[in-house]
Amino acid sequence: MSITLYGISGSPFVWRVLLALEHKSLVYDLTSIGVSKGENKLDWYLSMNPRGKVPVLKDGDTVVYESIAILSYLERKYPKSKLFGSTAKQHASIMTQVMEQCSYMEQDTLQIVRPIFFGGVEESRDLMIQAVDRVEQELNHLEKILEQKKWLTGDEMSAADIGLFPLLMIQQRALGKTEADTLNLSFNPLSDQYPNLLRWSQQIEALPYYQKTYPPHWRNL
Amino acid sequence: MSITLYGISGSPFVWRVLLALEHKSLVYDLTSIGVSKGENKLDWYLSMNPRGKVPVLKDGDTVVYESIAILSYLERKYPKSKLFGSTAKQHASIMTQVMEQCSYMEQDTLQIVRPIFFGGVEESRDLMIQAVDRVEQELNHLEKILEQKKWLTGDEMSAADIGLFPLLMIQQRALGKTEADTLNLSFNPLSDQYPNLLRWSQQIEALPYYQKTYPPHWRNL
Repeated sequence: MSITLYGISGSPFVWRVLLALEHKSLVYDLTSIGVSKGENKLDWYLSMNPRGKVPVLKDGDTVVYESIAILSYLERKYPKSKLFGSTAKQHASIMTQVMEQCSYMEQDTLQIVRPIFFGGVEESRDLMIQAVDRVEQELNHLEKILEQKKWLTGDEMSAADIGLFPLLMIQQRALGKTEADTLNLSFNPLSDQYPNLLRWSQQIEALPYYQKTYPPHWRNL
Repeated sequence: MSITLYGISGSPFVWRVLLALEHKSLVYDLTSIGVSKGENKLDWYLSMNPRGKVPVLKDGDTVVYESIAILSYLERKYPKSKLFGSTAKQHASIMTQVMEQCSYMEQDTLQIVRPIFFGGVEESRDLMIQAVDRVEQELNHLEKILEQKKWLTGDEMSAADIGLFPLLMIQQRALGKTEADTLNLSFNPLSDQYPNLLRWSQQIEALPYYQKTYPPHWRNL
């Protein structure tokens, strides 16, 4: 059996999976999908994920998509180097935070970054500012959690950390673009504004495999 | 150890947990939270879920919230009568669908039902109609899946079925209210429009414990 991850550089959802694969020391191929060339709308790709989205993970004859579903599959299939807890109680805490990210952080992150990367900042201004407001509330909540804890759910890195980090990285990257200047936002999720989150993000950046997961095209532009 | 579920009648997210608890034949207390009286904003409740939302599940000294996190916790703690698959491959398929519901169905369901139950249909008309459009696309996709399968992920009921059913029930209930009349929508998720979904929903309604999970106040109004 061999593992193939289909992705695009810079997708926070693909990044989550890369961090999980590396954390579990799994061997995998990363196949880049040319979304601008429409590769994600070709039959062979749609047969794996009818939405045409990344990431998709293929492991032998198992196909799984949606980043958190992929993380959960990897944990089930390759339980070493756990990401979802060693006990049911830890699992509860990790899954609660993972699902909170899905319910209260992912959509707002996309609402902030999509107009900056793909156009439409002026038309989306109000929605973007509302999304930043909600993200700031979430980060205040997480900042408090990290006052007491090394990682979001305790002493060990978990799926909660891997789920959150790429979302904050893409927020930071988007809001640093000149396209975001007219929004006049002082918000930066990984800065002195949130010292505990900044310390936490530096722990992730210090992981031995971190550079391998960093979006290649972010190094250049 | 004893299990307490904190909920309100008619919440689709609470309903998911009730179906899971019954499926696993677990003994639990259901405690009604008086949201209109602000009970969900009292310190004792916020200490369990700082968002003040339902459902919350307390099992001994473990507290878990967000409905899918609760289902995942119950599976881990009480693995009998599985809801997340017996194999990693089944787990992949179930988690993919569960996370798709979170990403592509939950927000739109709330966008449809909240103005009908809590006011603001006129102001929300466009957003509601867009949400119905997207839900219809999702249902077309699910209808096709159910052409081939008894349950959404195969021969056995899973967390994917339990996750979806209450969302469609509350859509149907909301759109049947007189407050929805001015929207002029012919959409009904559990009708002849979607014969496979209708057959599937009847399988759930035929479960021996179904009536015990049905929202009590829906019987009267």
